[in-house]
Amino acid sequence: MFEQILETVKNKTPLVHNITNYVTVNDVANIVLACGGSPIMADDAKEVEEITRICSSLVINIGTLNERTVESMILAGKTANELGLPVILDPVGAGASSLRTKTVFRLLEDITFSVIRGNMSEIKTVYEGSGNTKGVDAAPDDAVVEGNLEEAIAFAKRVSQQTGATIAITGAIDIVANQDEACIVRNGHPMMAKITGSGCMLSSVIGAYCGANPNHIFTSTIAAVSAMGLCGEQAYKKVVETNGGTSSFRMFLIDYMSKLDNVLLKGGMKIEDR
Amino acid sequence: MFEQILETVKNKTPLVHNITNYVTVNDVANIVLACGGSPIMADDAKEVEEITRICSSLVINIGTLNERTVESMILAGKTANELGLPVILDPVGAGASSLRTKTVFRLLEDITFSVIRGNMSEIKTVYEGSGNTKGVDAAPDDAVVEGNLEEAIAFAKRVSQQTGATIAITGAIDIVANQDEACIVRNGHPMMAKITGSGCMLSSVIGAYCGANPNHIFTSTIAAVSAMGLCGEQAYKKVVETNGGTSSFRMFLIDYMSKLDNVLLKGGMKIEDR
Amino acid sequence: MFEQILETVKNKTPLVHNITNYVTVNDVANIVLACGGSPIMADDAKEVEEITRICSSLVINIGTLNERTVESMILAGKTANELGLPVILDPVGAGASSLRTKTVFRLLEDITFSVIRGNMSEIKTVYEGSGNTKGVDAAPDDAVVEGNLEEAIAFAKRVSQQTGATIAITGAIDIVANQDEACIVRNGHPMMAKITGSGCMLSSVIGAYCGANPNHIFTSTIAAVSAMGLCGEQAYKKVVETNGGTSSFRMFLIDYMSKLDNVLLKGGMKIEDR
Repeated sequence: MFEQILETVKNKTPLVHNITNYVTVNDVANIVLACGGSPIMADDAKEVEEITRICSSLVINIGTLNERTVESMILAGKTANELGLPVILDPVGAGASSLRTKTVFRLLEDITFSVIRGNMSEIKTVYEGSGNTKGVDAAPDDAVVEGNLEEAIAFAKRVSQQTGATIAITGAIDIVANQDEACIVRNGHPMMAKITGSGCMLSSVIGAYCGANPNHIFTSTIAAVSAMGLCGEQAYKKVVETNGGTSSFRMFLIDYMSKLDNVLLKGGMKIEDR
Repeated sequence: MFEQILETVKNKTPLVHNITNYVTVNDVANIVLACGGSPIMADDAKEVEEITRICSSLVINIGTLNERTVESMILAGKTANELGLPVILDPVGAGASSLRTKTVFRLLEDITFSVIRGNMSEIKTVYEGSGNTKGVDAAPDDAVVEGNLEEAIAFAKRVSQQTGATIAITGAIDIVANQDEACIVRNGHPMMAKITGSGCMLSSVIGAYCGANPNHIFTSTIAAVSAMGLCGEQAYKKVVETNGGTSSFRMFLIDYMSKLDNVLLKGGMKIEDR
Repeated sequence: MFEQILETVKNKTPLVHNITNYVTVNDVANIVLACGGSPIMADDAKEVEEITRICSSLVINIGTLNERTVESMILAGKTANELGLPVILDPVGAGASSLRTKTVFRLLEDITFSVIRGNMSEIKTVYEGSGNTKGVDAAPDDAVVEGNLEEAIAFAKRVSQQTGATIAITGAIDIVANQDEACIVRNGHPMMAKITGSGCMLSSVIGAYCGANPNHIFTSTIAAVSAMGLCGEQAYKKVVETNGGTSSFRMFLIDYMSKLDNVLLKGGMKIEDR
């Protein structure tokens, strides 16, 4: 199945509309190209609907949101929903300011998302804004470790139930969950947290994978999470070999995404059904 | 002649005012520095005229246009025209949304451009907006190949006639044309299409070359197109040597621009008069 | 002392709020991570105060200022002042347009800065805007060389006296000065001027160092200036080894910041009290 997901991305070259932040936008565009997609960045309210219409998916990332772009996100999201295109949400920093939290709540109200990817803190905020009346008491601690893994998976399923989206909670151990099914991904390397954009890049790779495989959102999300982690592992090895640092790591990460094939992916995926 | 073009860029260190998109802006700034120029990015309406006045050329790139920056483009463009400075247009995505198409039409109406660089689809849109009454029927297909090369060259000359600008249509084979003369450039590598910013970077290198050589717009444009392609060829070789991917390619591309000299350029240029 | 500065950055992982330009923002975020801090970029007026409140320091960089973000700078700066957090100013291009100059004057009036870092031209503009009634006649020429070094140090002290900030004037020779004390730093490499963002990155590294060591602003600034220069020296060596260019240099610069430890810093610092 995962082989087909990758194959389809490369055959279809899905156009991915990204309304994203200006910090990591270049890396996002380059990794979408590297994974076989084609990125379009457009955030003016006057054109976002038209741009979404020619695309295969939409990725909304609130990393450097401002009033102007929030309106564009809503317009593009509604258009994608009308057309039945996958819409991915990356709620960067949700919970860190009331603007971010309110924006996430508004996006959740106005747009149906196919996938929501964030760290545990961000997904907790998503949970609060998705009709949950119990607060976040039920949520596990922000770092997902072996000890709270079961709890975290159950939480991810609840967020999926409330939002209707596939939920990807990424960290030392990654969780991908639907209402009824979940799996964990043990790919990745701690150095991914030492560069900016690992999360943003992953969200847009999910956008490319889902854009090419709109009927396989859950599987595509798992494939993207695992692929990204695997590239991180490979990149770290090359950093050691070349006596590099975090900036070399960033380059090698995108390099490996551009070289990823089924052989590498199949040999390296560390996925467990839960 | 090409030797002098390069020499002059390095001797004059032309200041290049870029009103450009936030996706590739960092690469653009770095390649302008690498080729011997000095980049200034400024897009607030309150300062663009003043900034243009201290510069040697202006590059307008509509990659992530919005209402605020379009006004700045017009103001800066008019100032550059008053001063007789070279103005380069990169109509990114023209044709993809009516905002982009309308913006290009407005820019063409208000500003006289020295050089317009885009892919065939973008240049077709430029043609529509430049007083052409025949639609785009006369234009060749979007991919320039041996079979439609003559047609594409003739088209580029017509666009030049209508706009008064040197036209650079880049792709697998690059065309640079004036009203009466044209040449094709066979430098470059397909991996240039696998990173974001190859086109944006080239447009600003053209800005630097023309800024230093304002009386040799046509020759400077050819030199820049060939130089960029040559750096792409060299970069690809190094990607293979280092077992890299697309992100390494991007770095090597800028590296080679920073190391480009007359010996390398002269030995590698693949230019044919047509 | 310098050892403790570095140690504290790594132990505290200071959150650094950056309101900065979109040209170099990615490099800034990555070098803050590389040096042991954690960057947050947020520029909407509705959230900047809240974001500053959760941070250890604030860096204001006017590289691509616009009306919207200037208001955010003021709001964030006042909040940081209330909380007693270090605020760093990078007056990019001050003097190049009246918008930039006026913005710097306004920032100096409304906000108390802990550190102001710029090149000589920018710091001269700061001097004009900080209550100086003598114009810039007393300032040395814009390039700091052995011949005008004493004059430049005396000037830096005067700017410090007028602004209350530690002044860092960077160039071929770097000067760090307080009202009463000064030192020069002879680390660095000319290739730092051949990439965009060397200055922006340094300002935010100062932000991280001061954020972790708010009671040692002067020493932290010296440590950051020297560390950055040292990474430039190391990066250049690796460029030569790998037959690279300016883009490789940029990567190695951030790489070395991510690998910098007390041993390397202690062995390489070139600091002279003056």
